[in-house]
Amino acid sequence: MTYTFTQISEQIELALSQYQHYFVGKPTELYEPIRYILSNGGKRLRPALVLLSCNLFTDKIEAATPSAVGLEVFHNFTLLHDDIMDKADMRRGNPTVHKKWNQNIAILSGDAMLIQAYKCISDMNILHLPSVLQLFNQTAIEVCEGQQWDMNFETAENVTVDDYLEMIRLKTSVLIAAACKMGALIGNASNKDTDLLYHFGLNIGIAFQLKDDLLDAFGDEKIFGKKNGGDILSDKKTYLLLKAKELADTNNLLKINQLIGNINISDENKIKSVLDIYQQLNVKQHTEKLINQYFDKAINALNEVSVANQNKTELLKLAEYLMQREK
Amino acid sequence: MTYTFTQISEQIELALSQYQHYFVGKPTELYEPIRYILSNGGKRLRPALVLLSCNLFTDKIEAATPSAVGLEVFHNFTLLHDDIMDKADMRRGNPTVHKKWNQNIAILSGDAMLIQAYKCISDMNILHLPSVLQLFNQTAIEVCEGQQWDMNFETAENVTVDDYLEMIRLKTSVLIAAACKMGALIGNASNKDTDLLYHFGLNIGIAFQLKDDLLDAFGDEKIFGKKNGGDILSDKKTYLLLKAKELADTNNLLKINQLIGNINISDENKIKSVLDIYQQLNVKQHTEKLINQYFDKAINALNEVSVANQNKTELLKLAEYLMQREK
Repeated sequence: MTYTFTQISEQIELALSQYQHYFVGKPTELYEPIRYILSNGGKRLRPALVLLSCNLFTDKIEAATPSAVGLEVFHNFTLLHDDIMDKADMRRGNPTVHKKWNQNIAILSGDAMLIQAYKCISDMNILHLPSVLQLFNQTAIEVCEGQQWDMNFETAENVTVDDYLEMIRLKTSVLIAAACKMGALIGNASNKDTDLLYHFGLNIGIAFQLKDDLLDAFGDEKIFGKKNGGDILSDKKTYLLLKAKELADTNNLLKINQLIGNINISDENKIKSVLDIYQQLNVKQHTEKLINQYFDKAINALNEVSVANQNKTELLKLAEYLMQREK
Repeated sequence: MTYTFTQISEQIELALSQYQHYFVGKPTELYEPIRYILSNGGKRLRPALVLLSCNLFTDKIEAATPSAVGLEVFHNFTLLHDDIMDKADMRRGNPTVHKKWNQNIAILSGDAMLIQAYKCISDMNILHLPSVLQLFNQTAIEVCEGQQWDMNFETAENVTVDDYLEMIRLKTSVLIAAACKMGALIGNASNKDTDLLYHFGLNIGIAFQLKDDLLDAFGDEKIFGKKNGGDILSDKKTYLLLKAKELADTNNLLKINQLIGNINISDENKIKSVLDIYQQLNVKQHTEKLINQYFDKAINALNEVSVANQNKTELLKLAEYLMQREK
């Protein structure tokens, strides 16, 4: 049977509750932050991709639940540690762990989560353990590389669009790709199909991050739930900014460089001025075009997977939702 | 053949150099701190215990090298993150990673090391992978628990000797125990023998930490390489201090409580006053007695292991060295 997205979501919440005992123990200071961040919502995108990808090849998707939970725990570990490094105060409308408790607790409970992620993954059938572990090890280290590039870019001059795309490939996309590939591996897919699923996830992942950049600048504030221009105010070198710098003539480039790091201008004016330049240079259209290119690549990979098209409906719907979302 | 400790040490350095490519990559900021801390010396105790324990049961100890390297990488990961949490400036005579680079780099390269530790361990023969992974997962999470207890104790009132022994069991001993058990597992030892090796390591580990506490207060400064009383100055709740509080009469207890946290007394006077109380209460002798008890338990476990006694010589020599060391 092919599970609907709703059924998959129910299975994920059930699985997370079945693994709750992994996140209970003493001292409380170590375990409470783990339960806090895991219960703090989120899209559960990665476990959904594991189970949906597995379901392409088999009805027995329970074999994939340890990996699905493991990837969700890993993803939340990266958020926990990234929030310390980014000095972020809030996450999904709640105080971050290092704000609610303290930095040492955030470092250590993050470490414990990374170990718990491995513990979940180690629960799987021995048949797939070596290949899934290898994929997870490789992916996890690439995510660290991506985070380090992201931090380097904060102070680096001359970051290019290509540098940025490589950074988000590592920081965001490889984990989404690994989720899809893991599901396929556990579903006993052929090597060709597992690779296709990886490429599906990789391209969806890049498109997903570009969409995030786009929403931050141009999202409908009422739906998006926060004010536009957060990335602009923090001088974040997003695709939009880097593409604008690439397209700008001398005059606009001068304007952009004057706006970046400028503390003598009101937030409102800074956002308006940067958005004006984006408009002049058609940055929104360029970004949408690139998102569509990555989305098309993803869909082409999915189309080539050797299972009946009707089985791909839910995965396709999820991919389309991620592209069309307004928040 | 039974390898000598020197031969084992050579194999460990060789193995670490063979795994060097795991610690080379980009961005440099992520990988350079890993190479820095791994090349920064240390006793290589945990990998030695893996290989010596394995060698009890088999000549083919190469199968244990991935685990041996993995445990050394894991141990150094814990030092890296602990140094951030403890705000330590120096480690083995060199600046700590967060001092030499910065805190974010220390957090992230530590995360990468934890992943690399798993990557090393994942390299092993599939036959032992599930049992070794399970042991490592359990041990790694216990080490985090120990570190959290250690941090909690800094501000906790009424920490008892038993609380302290449980904390060092988790923070220090379970990893030494796991090293011994891992070697036995990979050497295809019986369940009984792997458990005996675990208990050997666990008791050696507690004795090892108590010896550390003792050296900090009573070590020969010329050999130990640093001044006595570091723990006293930082008000660390070591076995020595907790035992003194347990043994003290009202008068001495008052004195101890007046000395702890007292900033109106010179370092020299504080150390001298606390050492005077330790002397009155025979704290040194109490500690030596407890060390010997744990050491005896360890040796009893080793004696029961079902291999010829002559094969146990090197492991026994290492255990004796750890107890008799002056630094």
